[in-house]
Amino acid sequence: MTPLLEGLRVVEVSAFVAAPIGGMTLAQLGAEVIRIDPLGGNIDIGRWPLAPSGTSLYWTALNKGKRSVSLALNTPEGQEIAAALIAEAGILITNLPAEKGWMSYAELSKRRPDLIMLRVTGTHDGANAIDYTVNAAVGFPIATGEDERPVNHVMPGWDVAAGLYLATGLIAAERRRARTGAGGEITLALSDVAYATVANLGYVADVQLNGHVRPPLGNAIYGAFGRDFQTSDGRRVMVAAISNRQWRAIGKATGLTERLALIGQVMDVDMEDEGGRYTARDAICAVLAPWFAARTLAEVRKAFEGSGVLWGAYQDFGQMVREDPRCSTANPLFHEIEQPGVGRVLAASAPLQPALPPRPASPLGADTDAVLAERLSMPAERIAALREAGILPRSAA
Amino acid sequence: MTPLLEGLRVVEVSAFVAAPIGGMTLAQLGAEVIRIDPLGGNIDIGRWPLAPSGTSLYWTALNKGKRSVSLALNTPEGQEIAAALIAEAGILITNLPAEKGWMSYAELSKRRPDLIMLRVTGTHDGANAIDYTVNAAVGFPIATGEDERPVNHVMPGWDVAAGLYLATGLIAAERRRARTGAGGEITLALSDVAYATVANLGYVADVQLNGHVRPPLGNAIYGAFGRDFQTSDGRRVMVAAISNRQWRAIGKATGLTERLALIGQVMDVDMEDEGGRYTARDAICAVLAPWFAARTLAEVRKAFEGSGVLWGAYQDFGQMVREDPRCSTANPLFHEIEQPGVGRVLAASAPLQPALPPRPASPLGADTDAVLAERLSMPAERIAALREAGILPRSAA
Repeated sequence: MTPLLEGLRVVEVSAFVAAPIGGMTLAQLGAEVIRIDPLGGNIDIGRWPLAPSGTSLYWTALNKGKRSVSLALNTPEGQEIAAALIAEAGILITNLPAEKGWMSYAELSKRRPDLIMLRVTGTHDGANAIDYTVNAAVGFPIATGEDERPVNHVMPGWDVAAGLYLATGLIAAERRRARTGAGGEITLALSDVAYATVANLGYVADVQLNGHVRPPLGNAIYGAFGRDFQTSDGRRVMVAAISNRQWRAIGKATGLTERLALIGQVMDVDMEDEGGRYTARDAICAVLAPWFAARTLAEVRKAFEGSGVLWGAYQDFGQMVREDPRCSTANPLFHEIEQPGVGRVLAASAPLQPALPPRPASPLGADTDAVLAERLSMPAERIAALREAGILPRSAA
Repeated sequence: MTPLLEGLRVVEVSAFVAAPIGGMTLAQLGAEVIRIDPLGGNIDIGRWPLAPSGTSLYWTALNKGKRSVSLALNTPEGQEIAAALIAEAGILITNLPAEKGWMSYAELSKRRPDLIMLRVTGTHDGANAIDYTVNAAVGFPIATGEDERPVNHVMPGWDVAAGLYLATGLIAAERRRARTGAGGEITLALSDVAYATVANLGYVADVQLNGHVRPPLGNAIYGAFGRDFQTSDGRRVMVAAISNRQWRAIGKATGLTERLALIGQVMDVDMEDEGGRYTARDAICAVLAPWFAARTLAEVRKAFEGSGVLWGAYQDFGQMVREDPRCSTANPLFHEIEQPGVGRVLAASAPLQPALPPRPASPLGADTDAVLAERLSMPAERIAALREAGILPRSAA
């Protein structure tokens, strides 16, 4: 089957998470993505976690399947080559400052009037921001945990979402260009991704209309039944019911249907309504907690097997990698790849299946000569001269 | 300017967050999206938060800009109409169980051989899962907060990312169909979104190669400098440095450059390296904390203005809505809309700018008659007969 994005060509000039995930997603769907970095790499080149060799596991994982070009981007010659590569590809994705200067849409579109450019900023008015500062502003850390002390989320959700908005916007823009001939610049503020999502989940209107601020609830789910429970062997499980069927499954699997039903009278709520179960959550947990506390995780798993109960065990990253078949080649998502500079590691394809198998990241600058020859028809002598002049990486790449 | 997805037509049969965000994103970019629900709505119709009227603020916010059709989907007639609408649009996005039966790809593609179908599942092997149970499994709650007790994330990051993967995959699949004529079924497991992301951030390889499990670090950033600080007026701010320039800005703005530099000797680390600053984070915080504790948030803001320091104040949802201009019509992201059943609320456009202004959600079933007439050329008498037979919503829609 033809890969979804066959023939799509993109240049990425980026660092960290958002734009690299955008570019990687396109590469995973079959686009040819060239990431251009300054000599020595951008500021994400050494980001933790690191392999024993010192190579960044973060950088290599976020740049899988891309070709890597490195250039002296602080020189006019390096900028000229990068601009030529961007014009040739016709699509640029970046999260570096590019409102002005050689990488601005105004400059680049002189070479390529139908250029498509996706540019990530911190906030819509140009201030700098990262996932952590954005998340602090949009209310989630204060709503997380047991009380009002803020708890930062560890998953960089805004970066991930921003990367996927970029991929969406880029393919959509190429669709329009194919139909109308028009390119254009699209900007995406990381903070707008977060503010939009808070509004999309109803929390903004909840404040506006009800004056209500969704409070911290520990590990409980807001507006439905769900919480964590401890097992007799010290493990924890998350249990939830977002439908009446799932709610009834909990009663049946634990043998506590009658006692749970009585909570409706005790608490004066409708136990067939998820709002009622939310209101009665402490009473529900008081009934359920001893059931979990009397069983090992294995016993809970056995009791819930095929029951329709919506649940899952908490795992740390180590348990996930070592014990969970979903994080192994038993899941079609994962393949083992040989990552240069790192070794043999598990790598994910795009979660959209069927997927192309994951490809390793090119080492920094490894495709420089080949890309300049292919895309810009640059002769070998010119490449050698640029290397001599310090515009291309010194090492034979 | 032509909207990015002009002419794209999609049917969505969905509930909750992932598929609705996918469909809404397409609608925000100009696609015509019809959401089909059972009579009375799907199980997300009453999801919290609610407006004073009882209308779900969550449902209306997640279905903005879609047309709404409701049908007796548990009857052969209702299924026949839904299948005809799907075949007519040529693209279906769903997170309902559709591996078998009338809504399966095998059945629907009999009517429309080039059908594109995007189908969300819980796990890749068909088990049920939601954001909370998936997140429990992939390590983030245990890595969140001060210790190994799991702390659930409040932002449904996997649902949001899944919705955006759906949008990406759908537009990519339509691109391929436009070029090759081929449709196809694409599946997306919510849990695969999470497992892939953990691997994409390097945490899987960190376990495999180093036997290292990223620990809970409270509000500190892993592998760089960043943490929260309390101000003299009881507010908290997040401060980070992911580049040397940002690090130097902190020293300059606080007047603590020399003392911070001495930490390098004290802790025997390279303070010009983000790994060194991570290792020395407790010493850094010991030096910085009194500076914040002696200043109000307003004083911190003044000291950091134009300084290049990467920081942000924590806000709860209420402070965000009431005090932050980024969450107001001063930000082009937001518009005020009149949402039927709810009233006047702030609503977000797509964060990809320039964006179409947000449109309200259609009330459940409100477009049923119009869509059946337009798309299936159904005569008024037939619509009336279907209403009489209980296949269409009773209320004049």
